[in-house]
Amino acid sequence: MADHWATSGVDLHLEPTGPGLRRGLTDALREAVRSGRLAPCTRLPSSRALAADLGIARNTVADAYADLVAEGWLTARQGSGTRVAERTVVPSAGTASDPHPRTPTRPAYDLRPGSPDLASFPRAQWLKAARRALTAAPSDALDYGGPSGRPELRAALAGYLSRARGVRADPERIVMCGGFAHGLKLLGTVLRARGARTVAVESYGLDVHRRILEASGLRTTPLPFDRLGTDPGELQDADAVLLTPAHQFPMGVPLHRDRRASVVDWARRTGGLVLEDDYDGEFRYDRQPVGALQGLDPDRVVYLGTASKSLAPGLRLAWMVLPTDLAKEVVTAKGGVDTCGVLDQLTLTEFLTSGAYDRHVRATRLRYRRRRDALVAAVAARAPEARITGIAAGLHVLLRLPPGTEQSVVEAGHWRGLALHGLTRYSNPAARTEPADALVVGYGTPPDHAWSGALDALCAVLPG
Amino acid sequence: MADHWATSGVDLHLEPTGPGLRRGLTDALREAVRSGRLAPCTRLPSSRALAADLGIARNTVADAYADLVAEGWLTARQGSGTRVAERTVVPSAGTASDPHPRTPTRPAYDLRPGSPDLASFPRAQWLKAARRALTAAPSDALDYGGPSGRPELRAALAGYLSRARGVRADPERIVMCGGFAHGLKLLGTVLRARGARTVAVESYGLDVHRRILEASGLRTTPLPFDRLGTDPGELQDADAVLLTPAHQFPMGVPLHRDRRASVVDWARRTGGLVLEDDYDGEFRYDRQPVGALQGLDPDRVVYLGTASKSLAPGLRLAWMVLPTDLAKEVVTAKGGVDTCGVLDQLTLTEFLTSGAYDRHVRATRLRYRRRRDALVAAVAARAPEARITGIAAGLHVLLRLPPGTEQSVVEAGHWRGLALHGLTRYSNPAARTEPADALVVGYGTPPDHAWSGALDALCAVLPG
Repeated sequence: MADHWATSGVDLHLEPTGPGLRRGLTDALREAVRSGRLAPCTRLPSSRALAADLGIARNTVADAYADLVAEGWLTARQGSGTRVAERTVVPSAGTASDPHPRTPTRPAYDLRPGSPDLASFPRAQWLKAARRALTAAPSDALDYGGPSGRPELRAALAGYLSRARGVRADPERIVMCGGFAHGLKLLGTVLRARGARTVAVESYGLDVHRRILEASGLRTTPLPFDRLGTDPGELQDADAVLLTPAHQFPMGVPLHRDRRASVVDWARRTGGLVLEDDYDGEFRYDRQPVGALQGLDPDRVVYLGTASKSLAPGLRLAWMVLPTDLAKEVVTAKGGVDTCGVLDQLTLTEFLTSGAYDRHVRATRLRYRRRRDALVAAVAARAPEARITGIAAGLHVLLRLPPGTEQSVVEAGHWRGLALHGLTRYSNPAARTEPADALVVGYGTPPDHAWSGALDALCAVLPG
Repeated sequence: MADHWATSGVDLHLEPTGPGLRRGLTDALREAVRSGRLAPCTRLPSSRALAADLGIARNTVADAYADLVAEGWLTARQGSGTRVAERTVVPSAGTASDPHPRTPTRPAYDLRPGSPDLASFPRAQWLKAARRALTAAPSDALDYGGPSGRPELRAALAGYLSRARGVRADPERIVMCGGFAHGLKLLGTVLRARGARTVAVESYGLDVHRRILEASGLRTTPLPFDRLGTDPGELQDADAVLLTPAHQFPMGVPLHRDRRASVVDWARRTGGLVLEDDYDGEFRYDRQPVGALQGLDPDRVVYLGTASKSLAPGLRLAWMVLPTDLAKEVVTAKGGVDTCGVLDQLTLTEFLTSGAYDRHVRATRLRYRRRRDALVAAVAARAPEARITGIAAGLHVLLRLPPGTEQSVVEAGHWRGLALHGLTRYSNPAARTEPADALVVGYGTPPDHAWSGALDALCAVLPG
């Protein structure tokens, strides 16, 4: 086996610059491997050395390495450093043009938050529902659809959301979209067109959501976060606020009762709009679900739900429940015709009305709850220095670590083929948050057979 | 049966104003019926009388009436005038917020162009392919996908488009989108971001396409049209041009060989971009298909294809084949994740690779060709004053009428429950086209059992 060395950033011909440094470095390294400029088995400089060469933070390099290990371009083994993978992944056709490629090959265990257990997608039941739905559908249903989405699906969702999430929904207020990001993009466009300038966001969240709003020409500004959740006290001049009230992502707490009320008060007082991201509202384990904030004032709160966590992201089906005037503007922004496929919409209708959706949610909720219990027990027993919070709901927990250890735990995970995300990547850089070392552990993603292995690998890298 | 009369525009409380007069009038009338302000069976004023009351053109009123008859809100019978439908359609949940509602109830016969025969959608084969595709798919395929679309579908499409349409496609240049309109919107956004100002369009076409480009901040400017098709001689300062080269919509002619070459020359010389709308390229009857213009220069021509005509619009699956640099920008504009459902993408892949797609296209091509032949024969025999052109391809023909008769033929059609579109509505108002009376007859839409009835109804209203 050839043992090439690429000992410095200069050797690597990398010149990552400007904002998005980690992304730039990751792309540059990936391109170097893909193009063959870095041959298979080439050993890369240590993250410390490369960071010094490039004059950037060591964490940035370590993150880029970790991403590329997770994607299969690099390998990392204790004792042999980080190398170009021996058999480099044949670049899938999509990779070149995808700015956010999902790992072409997965790490052995994936504990990053964001996706459900895809192996538990109810394929047989879905196909059965698809057969029923397509057999029953009139031919007209296959034509160009109205931009709000299929009426039968909106009717079924209105019933479901009212029953399961306390949403005050009627079908005329519902607009289907191709995932949460699509919905947020439409809302950003409409808000900007209305003259909005600023959307308040949470101190912790997904940077891709901020970027979507900013791409619409809106400024985002973070709200403080404390033990009661996000603090709406500083909403003041914002035109809208994006919140995860039922289960803050990624901190895992529900928004405190008083704050729920004061957010809605703010919206009423100022004419502001609340965008409620209810990404995993179905998954609550120990108590009654936290009802949707939208139920407090459907004219001031936009409810956004999705099938991405309850079924699968690949369906690309999400829904907004909107104030009536806003529904019209969103439909216009959507471009006059539906962009969501009719067949999946009809199938989801059948899934909802036949009770298959409720059965699936119940079954997965039970499975996720067992995983959470196992995770909490294992960490308590084997890594007493770590502390788990945000366990009451959802598909992830926050695993608090001793100060200064987050980065090294994430890196240690990658040595073991364990994809982990630290809390740092979910912190809004503009927010005044206390630095806190933690992992955001998604326990949804591993298939059942890999779950105990993933848990072992996690406990092995936690300071204990 | 009550016989209410609403004798004037004042009685109707209609105040349609501003641009989009026909749309405004249609919406106002629909709302009056839906709300019950106009009771069932109420007789409306004649189009001439209402036009005079409102101070607008008679054609505008007649068009609005015709649209609402087609949608089932009004009825029109010879001798009893136009009335509110006896049992008004229960407003479907979608209608209120849909700016382009497709008819909630169809007229008896629909000969408007734009949709294929939805009754011939291969439901059983599609479900079979869905079963195979979903059974074979790895769980990962159900996750968030890259924004270009599923790699296996792009690979299958690259092969198909190269073979069937002469497109120089490789999977990395393909980006999936949720229908042609979605693709055009993305292209408009990217062109504008690149600094483009003007997109040339054809003198005849869909106004919704112009509006999509204009909504991106681009100016559209029409090109002259003559017997060789669209004349690219006046492209000059345009930054891009939107064309239907294989089968001009709605005129039905292919772009002349010399003009194909000169469009590409223009693009090379000026750095302009050609947007090739290949909406029905699969359906050519008498000769070899006209290959895609994109084959002449894949770096200057964007190819746009769709499953809307070959399968069904409801699938919301279309594809762009793009110059490499543009593919990246389009993917960014798409928002970082795919918005097309994975299951339909996987099913279409299976459909393409198993040969089911080719079989379906062959079968429908044969059926459409028979319809076209019957249409040509019937018109020749029964309406010798009409002249059919644009018959070599597609799902519609141009039926030229004696001067001054288009509007009365469209209206006569509506009296018989026959939905027809005149050429006028496809003429770019900014174009210097000779006024020409014609129908754009779509023969795809009626199901087989209704086809001969539709043809009879058509011949009955033609001047002959």
